[in-house]
Amino acid sequence: MKIPASTHFCMQDRELTVDGIALSRIAEQVGTPCYVYSAAAIEEAYRSIDQALSSVPHMVAYAVKANSNLSVLSLLSRLGSGADIVSGGELTRVLAAGFPPSRVAFSGVGKRDAEIEMALEAGIASLHAESEAEIFAIEEIAKAKSKVAPLVLRVNPDVDANTHPYISTGLHSTKFGIELDVARRMLPHLLQSPHLRLVGIACHVGSMVLDPAPIGEATQRIAEFAVECHKAGAKLEILDAGGGWPILYGNEESVAKSHQIFGQSIIEGMRRGGALDLGLSLMVEPGRSIVGDAGVLLTRVLYIKEQAGKRFVVVDGAMTELIRPALYDAYHAVVPVTQPMQDLSRADVVGPVCESADFFAKDRPLPPLQRGDLLAVRGAGAYAAVMASNYNSRPMAPEVLAQAGEFAVVRRRQTMDDVLRNER
Amino acid sequence: MKIPASTHFCMQDRELTVDGIALSRIAEQVGTPCYVYSAAAIEEAYRSIDQALSSVPHMVAYAVKANSNLSVLSLLSRLGSGADIVSGGELTRVLAAGFPPSRVAFSGVGKRDAEIEMALEAGIASLHAESEAEIFAIEEIAKAKSKVAPLVLRVNPDVDANTHPYISTGLHSTKFGIELDVARRMLPHLLQSPHLRLVGIACHVGSMVLDPAPIGEATQRIAEFAVECHKAGAKLEILDAGGGWPILYGNEESVAKSHQIFGQSIIEGMRRGGALDLGLSLMVEPGRSIVGDAGVLLTRVLYIKEQAGKRFVVVDGAMTELIRPALYDAYHAVVPVTQPMQDLSRADVVGPVCESADFFAKDRPLPPLQRGDLLAVRGAGAYAAVMASNYNSRPMAPEVLAQAGEFAVVRRRQTMDDVLRNER
Repeated sequence: MKIPASTHFCMQDRELTVDGIALSRIAEQVGTPCYVYSAAAIEEAYRSIDQALSSVPHMVAYAVKANSNLSVLSLLSRLGSGADIVSGGELTRVLAAGFPPSRVAFSGVGKRDAEIEMALEAGIASLHAESEAEIFAIEEIAKAKSKVAPLVLRVNPDVDANTHPYISTGLHSTKFGIELDVARRMLPHLLQSPHLRLVGIACHVGSMVLDPAPIGEATQRIAEFAVECHKAGAKLEILDAGGGWPILYGNEESVAKSHQIFGQSIIEGMRRGGALDLGLSLMVEPGRSIVGDAGVLLTRVLYIKEQAGKRFVVVDGAMTELIRPALYDAYHAVVPVTQPMQDLSRADVVGPVCESADFFAKDRPLPPLQRGDLLAVRGAGAYAAVMASNYNSRPMAPEVLAQAGEFAVVRRRQTMDDVLRNER
Repeated sequence: MKIPASTHFCMQDRELTVDGIALSRIAEQVGTPCYVYSAAAIEEAYRSIDQALSSVPHMVAYAVKANSNLSVLSLLSRLGSGADIVSGGELTRVLAAGFPPSRVAFSGVGKRDAEIEMALEAGIASLHAESEAEIFAIEEIAKAKSKVAPLVLRVNPDVDANTHPYISTGLHSTKFGIELDVARRMLPHLLQSPHLRLVGIACHVGSMVLDPAPIGEATQRIAEFAVECHKAGAKLEILDAGGGWPILYGNEESVAKSHQIFGQSIIEGMRRGGALDLGLSLMVEPGRSIVGDAGVLLTRVLYIKEQAGKRFVVVDGAMTELIRPALYDAYHAVVPVTQPMQDLSRADVVGPVCESADFFAKDRPLPPLQRGDLLAVRGAGAYAAVMASNYNSRPMAPEVLAQAGEFAVVRRRQTMDDVLRNER
């Protein structure tokens, strides 16, 4: 089993710890399953990405959808991060967490009228539009509110995925982005409209891009288009190269390039596109790469079951806490908290939910385990708690933030009263 | 597009209605997205299944995980249904909904100690055990509480899926069930234990089984084993043939057999296994087949987007409300609420969530649609609301129950206050 190296989740006195705190102690006090995040890991990743762009004016707009816990958001806000949001709910969160509206960008293909109204009233930095119809909707709402909407066009850079085998989710040539010729056709209208202010151009090529080349290439395309817009009279402020910066889950066939190389590739794309001297702020939207490896899901072994020549480790965590294995067939390293990695034999780690899809790991070398033992599922800082459900009437698990040698519950475990609150 | 026939969701005065109530009126009053259930459809399906088993003593134990809304549960409880639960949370629900504990069965591979305690204290009819380790845990807890646990062995009937191509989820030869030889080996212990009372044998071959033959065959196997247990001195009360009864979503290659034929096939398996004269109650655990086609997800068109020669209909519902297309690549019929099915052309129906996986339908013939139009996603009575998440910080959608010409909100829409309640 490949377990990504971590300076935050490591063995100390023969126990897995988070920044020196024994995970067994957290499990004891908070119960399992629970998510545990390292504030130091989040800060380190944020600073590394921020540093990678330091040679140009820029904003790291954290992709809130990856992990929207209020304490995680507050931490990033204090570090100076911006926020990339995709809903009115996320807008409520980032404002509650202290992000100034001037550092908030609103992305997404399906903004409802009420969400656009919220965004205009809050005075956020930019609405990133993905279709002609959406632009007209934003314009109409801005007009009704006598506002001017700061608009960023998310264009589809049409970078060929086939030449870049490392784009794991493929290009968003589906529902995402505006085709370049449509954007070009709309330009005169955007420049004339009294209720729209074109402030930037954006792209996003995919998730978990291990090599930045396609992001660099896409950045060049939008930089070229930004130059076109500039010549047409647009007063652009933002060039948004999107997200997609990876982490390693442990099953990758190649190592991901460093944040430094990602930054260089994007800045180089901006230069090649001729946009380096337009006075633009370079925006990036990393989510997973900031929080993904800063979290684990702690879970306890309920039963060991030997069947059909196989060892099943039934744990108390489930797809309700981490749906990525079921949904994307995603790999997550699973690490014993107190057992040494020796006398290994293969096992499936499965949850209690009544679905074949409810598993964390298949056919993994693991040490002997018994009822009560703790396991940590790595890479659970991103797209884990945010995708949780109450399936099988399971209350949502608590989130814990470890910081400066202490830990605090930053979302308490749901009770059945919470779950039933709105029903009758 | 194949749209399953329904006598509950049908056109009336050129509008899709639920038992005569215009869905547009519900959308207007409750907002979208929302789930709408037909009480009449639930009752009809329940009675049809109950009727199919009427020639033998039996209990229809509704699989609560399919749709656990309290009003849906109350309705089924009043009809005389039993409840098949898989967690302590579901136990809380069924007791709140008025099910007598004597009609409650607890299934699932990963029962926690606290859940076993709850079940023993409530005095439910049976705990369905799936591993040797689980049986010992139940025994130990029963002993500590000076109780006798009513135990049903869920055995793996080892019916070959290959001979039954209609088992869509395959056989649960994975984490589910106890192998027959293990069950046989444990029998003496089960009969001697002062804290266990072996009351039944169970199996479950899969979901969405269109032809009952494998269920009949599995029932025969557990009937044969029940006879063995009977001869060994067990006082059995229950033979549990599991669930798996199907509905039609619209993309099936063959028609599902009727409830009557399913019932006959199971009773026939019981007879072939020699268990018809043991005085057992035949239990079945249908979920989807009772509530699946009794619900729709109502959603409103936000934007129409023509791109790359394709029509995208962006709606306000998402994978957060119905994850089955993303998770299982499941087919759900999508029906316009006020537009006639004419002038059809192909479209993808997608949600606002920032994921390529966020879709309801791909490449479906649909009439011309515009911003504000309503669509109903059929087959959303089961495994829809129960699997909902707050991904992208989307508050969970309300559930509406139509009954006797009226409709009522039986779960109100979450607010962001609800979503943030446990965080800090």
